[in-house]
Amino acid sequence: CIEALLAEAAEPGAPARPCPCPLPEVDTALSRLVRRLLSARRSLDLCLFSFSCPQLARAVQLLHRRGVHVRLVTDAQYMGLHGSQIGRLRHAGIQVRHDQHSGYMHHKFAIVDRRMLITGSLNWTTQAIQSNRENVLVVEDAEYVKAFQDEFERIWEEYNPASYSFL
Amino acid sequence: CIEALLAEAAEPGAPARPCPCPLPEVDTALSRLVRRLLSARRSLDLCLFSFSCPQLARAVQLLHRRGVHVRLVTDAQYMGLHGSQIGRLRHAGIQVRHDQHSGYMHHKFAIVDRRMLITGSLNWTTQAIQSNRENVLVVEDAEYVKAFQDEFERIWEEYNPASYSFL
Repeated sequence: CIEALLAEAAEPGAPARPCPCPLPEVDTALSRLVRRLLSARRSLDLCLFSFSCPQLARAVQLLHRRGVHVRLVTDAQYMGLHGSQIGRLRHAGIQVRHDQHSGYMHHKFAIVDRRMLITGSLNWTTQAIQSNRENVLVVEDAEYVKAFQDEFERIWEEYNPASYSFL
Repeated sequence: CIEALLAEAAEPGAPARPCPCPLPEVDTALSRLVRRLLSARRSLDLCLFSFSCPQLARAVQLLHRRGVHVRLVTDAQYMGLHGSQIGRLRHAGIQVRHDQHSGYMHHKFAIVDRRMLITGSLNWTTQAIQSNRENVLVVEDAEYVKAFQDEFERIWEEYNPASYSFL
């Protein structure tokens, strides 16, 4: 289950413990997503409209602690909503940048090690994971990865706080 | 521009008219999306959380009139919102099905002729097109198209009004 997966990732050397939660051991879409994220070795670039799922935040924190270079872009209006994990991630030392516009930064994608693109309709919220119809596409075709990586770099620079304008 | 594109699609034989709108003739993301949709010859399967963009609705209506088999799945809560194009499309004779759940039908994809998948973060709303950061991925790889086509058929059957349950 997802709890066992995160526990194992947090302490890779520790002996396997029985799953601490009462859920059946199913290969859920969430655990498959977490597994893809945990495969990161060097970098994780996140561009997420809304991020409130605690398990996904724990996975991102684990990677940061493991030395993976994590960068996160998010939406200014949604980052302050109840349940948002953005504050916790910033507190953990992860670099976060956000827009300054009234329109939404509505992307929902992740790039692992500049080689694997994870994108789709899914916002990283518990509501979306538990209740909605969603899709998540995982692709490693260089052509697609490059288009999203380029967009990430463009946004990352545009949202650099050093260039904020104060009206 | 988008107006000229739709006018030409509505009357393919008519002589080219000057663009009726004052916008510059730029190849916008919206006009590229409309062009992809208008390439449909046999079928268009739409699975859209929110659909309020009038230009996209006109493109879909044109295809329906041209004899393309259009099926549309949408979200029950969002289909009734102000500006929604769903009523207009139903009125035009297009088959629409929706969920009956409290969770969202949050997909935003289209499949043209069972061969081209158009998917991403973009809801088909004017707000999203004009103001947001969004992505739209167009892929023709059979593997990806099949996964989304299968999901579409599953949802289409599940939302068949003949099997609605009344509590």
